[in-house]
Amino acid sequence: MSDYELRRTPRTQVVRNPKRADYDREVVNEIIDATALCHVSYIIDGRPYVTPTLQWREGDTIYWHGSSASRFLRQIVGKEVCMAITHFDGYVLARSAFHHSINYRSVMLFGEAIKIDGKEKNRLLDNFVDTLIPGRLKELRAMTDQEAKATTVFSMLIDEGSAKVRTGPPIDDDEDYELPIWAGVIPISQIQHAPVPDPNNKPGLDIPKHVQDFKLR
Amino acid sequence: MSDYELRRTPRTQVVRNPKRADYDREVVNEIIDATALCHVSYIIDGRPYVTPTLQWREGDTIYWHGSSASRFLRQIVGKEVCMAITHFDGYVLARSAFHHSINYRSVMLFGEAIKIDGKEKNRLLDNFVDTLIPGRLKELRAMTDQEAKATTVFSMLIDEGSAKVRTGPPIDDDEDYELPIWAGVIPISQIQHAPVPDPNNKPGLDIPKHVQDFKLR
Repeated sequence: MSDYELRRTPRTQVVRNPKRADYDREVVNEIIDATALCHVSYIIDGRPYVTPTLQWREGDTIYWHGSSASRFLRQIVGKEVCMAITHFDGYVLARSAFHHSINYRSVMLFGEAIKIDGKEKNRLLDNFVDTLIPGRLKELRAMTDQEAKATTVFSMLIDEGSAKVRTGPPIDDDEDYELPIWAGVIPISQIQHAPVPDPNNKPGLDIPKHVQDFKLR
Repeated sequence: MSDYELRRTPRTQVVRNPKRADYDREVVNEIIDATALCHVSYIIDGRPYVTPTLQWREGDTIYWHGSSASRFLRQIVGKEVCMAITHFDGYVLARSAFHHSINYRSVMLFGEAIKIDGKEKNRLLDNFVDTLIPGRLKELRAMTDQEAKATTVFSMLIDEGSAKVRTGPPIDDDEDYELPIWAGVIPISQIQHAPVPDPNNKPGLDIPKHVQDFKLR
């Protein structure tokens, strides 16, 4: 298993090895960019909550959005949150129950949830669509002011957190390798299926190129 | 989108319609049982954290485990946690950016993290393996006392939380259905791939039946 730290947690300021940090950062970005799904953890009235939502990244900043009416989003303005992004890559079958594991890639990020308003919000929402479904934005009818108002966008700097990656076969106790027990990995991945047209599509609408070209990240 | 509540949150005691509750509960159990991955949210020193881990269910109780040395597990004993289990089932492409969505099934559970010790812990760990990889446990060398000691198991009652399910095509504004824009769903699912034997397996070991029969939940 590999561990990558953006900054040591709990928050102890450490001087980072810039080379190591760059390497970490590439790994972190790859894990973030490989799915839109994330889980955001936050506190309301002293109780922990975790909500799944979609995220997207621009450079050193991660964004997520939601309905302005959402209790989750109204409560986290300027508050500290923790975001996890996790890929479940396979079951790891060892020779003992104890050494069973999973292969995975995961990132945990800490930061302050900053609410974005004005024109920047609209730009970000457009970019969100274009990041997730490249080529789709220009086909859509434009966002209305009311829609923008009904949507809240948050940002968080990617500067504190950690990543963990496990790959490869099980690691068993030395003596267990002599046992006649099959060990190995059952890999798991996410796949996309053929697009399903809305039954209410106008007649004669072919699946457009941007949908045909869509590739799950 | 369908919403299911186990009990109203924040914690207002309400008398539940038992029929509705049963229905909710079936939906909640199906979502829980359809994957082992979960995200547990908790508070340390007033800061929110979220950690991915594996869960399994026995009746009305959900369990998770980890290394006894884990900071996450040492800190949550008897504390309140929130657990999310989420399935990302597809991108929903609407005629406006605003009505884009995803199809998903998700559960959010609240409760106290109760640490399990003694023989019950060992039984639970055995059942964990047998739940995730049916048929494997009896092939493994037995768990040692030291391994049991190095492992912590937590339980939480499934009695407070909510589930949300979205399925089907996009829901657009009435007038947008007249636009010549292709709308629909790109379904997403998790698949398993062919088992990859550990290069250190003893020569002549075939893939056993329980691995051949393995089906991703």
